[in-house]
Amino acid sequence: MRTALFPGTFDPFHNGHLEIVETAAKLFDHLVVAPMRNPQKTEALFTLDERKAMIADTVAHLPNVTLASFSSLVVDLAREVGADVIVKGLRVVSDFESELQQAQMNKAVSGYETLFIPCSSESTFIASKYVRDFAHFGGADRIGSMVPAPVLAMLKAKFSGNGRP
Amino acid sequence: MRTALFPGTFDPFHNGHLEIVETAAKLFDHLVVAPMRNPQKTEALFTLDERKAMIADTVAHLPNVTLASFSSLVVDLAREVGADVIVKGLRVVSDFESELQQAQMNKAVSGYETLFIPCSSESTFIASKYVRDFAHFGGADRIGSMVPAPVLAMLKAKFSGNGRP
Amino acid sequence: MRTALFPGTFDPFHNGHLEIVETAAKLFDHLVVAPMRNPQKTEALFTLDERKAMIADTVAHLPNVTLASFSSLVVDLAREVGADVIVKGLRVVSDFESELQQAQMNKAVSGYETLFIPCSSESTFIASKYVRDFAHFGGADRIGSMVPAPVLAMLKAKFSGNGRP
Amino acid sequence: MRTALFPGTFDPFHNGHLEIVETAAKLFDHLVVAPMRNPQKTEALFTLDERKAMIADTVAHLPNVTLASFSSLVVDLAREVGADVIVKGLRVVSDFESELQQAQMNKAVSGYETLFIPCSSESTFIASKYVRDFAHFGGADRIGSMVPAPVLAMLKAKFSGNGRP
Amino acid sequence: MRTALFPGTFDPFHNGHLEIVETAAKLFDHLVVAPMRNPQKTEALFTLDERKAMIADTVAHLPNVTLASFSSLVVDLAREVGADVIVKGLRVVSDFESELQQAQMNKAVSGYETLFIPCSSESTFIASKYVRDFAHFGGADRIGSMVPAPVLAMLKAKFSGNGRP
Amino acid sequence: MRTALFPGTFDPFHNGHLEIVETAAKLFDHLVVAPMRNPQKTEALFTLDERKAMIADTVAHLPNVTLASFSSLVVDLAREVGADVIVKGLRVVSDFESELQQAQMNKAVSGYETLFIPCSSESTFIASKYVRDFAHFGGADRIGSMVPAPVLAMLKAKFSGNGRP
Repeated sequence: MRTALFPGTFDPFHNGHLEIVETAAKLFDHLVVAPMRNPQKTEALFTLDERKAMIADTVAHLPNVTLASFSSLVVDLAREVGADVIVKGLRVVSDFESELQQAQMNKAVSGYETLFIPCSSESTFIASKYVRDFAHFGGADRIGSMVPAPVLAMLKAKFSGNGRP
Repeated sequence: MRTALFPGTFDPFHNGHLEIVETAAKLFDHLVVAPMRNPQKTEALFTLDERKAMIADTVAHLPNVTLASFSSLVVDLAREVGADVIVKGLRVVSDFESELQQAQMNKAVSGYETLFIPCSSESTFIASKYVRDFAHFGGADRIGSMVPAPVLAMLKAKFSGNGRP
Repeated sequence: MRTALFPGTFDPFHNGHLEIVETAAKLFDHLVVAPMRNPQKTEALFTLDERKAMIADTVAHLPNVTLASFSSLVVDLAREVGADVIVKGLRVVSDFESELQQAQMNKAVSGYETLFIPCSSESTFIASKYVRDFAHFGGADRIGSMVPAPVLAMLKAKFSGNGRP
Repeated sequence: MRTALFPGTFDPFHNGHLEIVETAAKLFDHLVVAPMRNPQKTEALFTLDERKAMIADTVAHLPNVTLASFSSLVVDLAREVGADVIVKGLRVVSDFESELQQAQMNKAVSGYETLFIPCSSESTFIASKYVRDFAHFGGADRIGSMVPAPVLAMLKAKFSGNGRP
Repeated sequence: MRTALFPGTFDPFHNGHLEIVETAAKLFDHLVVAPMRNPQKTEALFTLDERKAMIADTVAHLPNVTLASFSSLVVDLAREVGADVIVKGLRVVSDFESELQQAQMNKAVSGYETLFIPCSSESTFIASKYVRDFAHFGGADRIGSMVPAPVLAMLKAKFSGNGRP
Repeated sequence: MRTALFPGTFDPFHNGHLEIVETAAKLFDHLVVAPMRNPQKTEALFTLDERKAMIADTVAHLPNVTLASFSSLVVDLAREVGADVIVKGLRVVSDFESELQQAQMNKAVSGYETLFIPCSSESTFIASKYVRDFAHFGGADRIGSMVPAPVLAMLKAKFSGNGRP
């Protein structure tokens, strides 16, 4: 049995992330999805608990996907959950370069390999940053095709009333 | 049981390729390595049979790795060998962009996903093109640390005598 | 009245090109599409006349689009057809860099500006090179969603019989 | 009549921006320049009103250029001002990738296309960030060739006295 | 006699930086290493004095390397220390683009050239940001091969006790 | 005394190359410029002797610059001419990545370091490929500001008469 770990900020989780989860859940026996605290400590839109809740709701149809409790270093979490490999999504060139550096650093300190799964071209422009901007400035209605339904509901709740979280 | 297909030109097969094979052979039950004819039809240094021979010798210690017979389209070969996924190595940003386009094209026409495995930083500069250039101009001795022993032997045989293949 | 020139190799013309034509035809009063001989002189799959024919058939529904006769330098052709600006499509980062160099070179020698129109994300992986490879190796059937109908018909005619052009 | 919208942070407006304005004002009947609040909310050097003032002074010689009042989403502002298209400048590869993502996102939610106008090579290194750094640390004198005269005057006023804004 | 200036944030100084120092110290008669205050004013892990101390300890074996006192603009510091040229390290593509812009800006305002020295492939993934993250989250033990001994000692002292600086 | 080697294809030598030569000749005691046969064996516009002649004429005002006779591998030539370091020019991101791979490969097999000197922004779009295209298609007159006078004369001689070399 092989287990993969899919770590990320997921603030919020969007359809590009969901694609990665669905692909990895087919290729590995067990997939652990782990929302992490951002090491740069920029303030997040959703708390870790909210992010875990939105992911759990979204991936409920995938029986071999579980959520991990928080741990500070990706390679330590990988060992804790018994992962054989780390998986990350890739959209664009600028993602790739910092992801490659982190993958090489993680391999050097722990031996863990990172596999990259490309987004489909339809998801290539979806980024949590733009999702937050749209939800922040204009209401969540126009990004309904970019996020899973549970995430859309939480975005609407967050920005209801005065349009500010 | 899950099978992965690792297609490439492998002209010649080098230590960066071997890293990918060793990682993929751990993550999947069966790995098929397939040297392909270059669609751009630039003339190759080694014939397809020579490339299959050098890979077979190099991966003999990995019992779940087999070699595939040639087929013209990667996605057709994937179906023929019963692969669940295609794997490719990634070294540098410029690799990434054309590999991503091909991965998205292959997914669009066949549904096949492509996984990318990054090279370790020590292999990042090894490219078949530079291996050929060094062997061509200066003898193969100085690239002994970049290619497996069977490949080095075949490079030396190819360039023995007058230093031209 | 403003005229734009859209030069390219178009070997073959595909749906990513068609998107650019449709956008540019809305933004300018007159759009001239000009298949050019490749300065690198790699042998083309379709002759210039075949490429003009496939484009003419494809853009017949756009009354303000015309085709240009061949001229050797883009900036000379721009002057001949009375263009106010050159337009090019952009898909990926590696396109961008050489296109930017050419745009700056063309501006330096002639004063002509180049406008870039990005492809939609659905077309981002469509490239003439991959279209040729698929048509060459596997028949044109699987790329029907990537090229206009007149181009698909010409690809099928080109590769009918023995699967070689 | 066709109208283009040129949105940006413009903190401050520099000669690279001015080039884009001059090119777009020739290609479209009406150009709206719109300084926007930075969605990342990093604190700006100049207020929105100061930025509107410096742009108004700089483009006073271009009769078909107007300034827009602030609106939160680019695509909403585009509709408000009756724009047919959004224009952005491009200097470098790293600009391109995030601009392309935003252009595809904006097209997906609103149908608006984005045109990219490359800077001339002489302006390629001018970035508002470096202009701010130079003004901040060393006085504005050495960047007189990189910003329009009204902007230089406002930079000098901002940093007069103790060299801190 | 020729003098080179190597400016940087060095928060902390790591083995990739040390490689650049050792190469530049061989190629120039005198090398000045200058930790600078980050113009973006993100809060640093180590003070400027701590960074000067860790560099001084690390490069004590190189007689022609000295440390510079702080000055706000790189080109002003270059003139103060009598430098003939500025040297910078390069690891990855995304470094390159902003470094190239700064080099062209510095040349435009001062005439100073910047030379780029590539890191060896073994150091390519070492970045101060990742060193900080590892030290912050997991103790410094696992990054002992990425930083000089004096830096490791200072990292351990900084994060001893509760694992927070 | 320190010697630098500047190898290149130089087909033809242009003003971007000349900038690199002038900078390197100031920073090192002796600079050796070496036109090399292209390892990819694409047919060249100018012979090696013609390229040596055009460079010799162009750099005659720089007493510490000499030309090297041909040798097959850059690192072997570096040793033959007693070079301490290899210098290369850098214009754009896509240059950088393959140059970095070659620099790391050359260091691995020989210990030689490579220094990169960025072009000024005015030269950033000048590439031998575009110079050849312009000379080929349209006469050399329009690229007079991009190549040294001796090169312009040789381009005009090459393309005189029927506009074909």
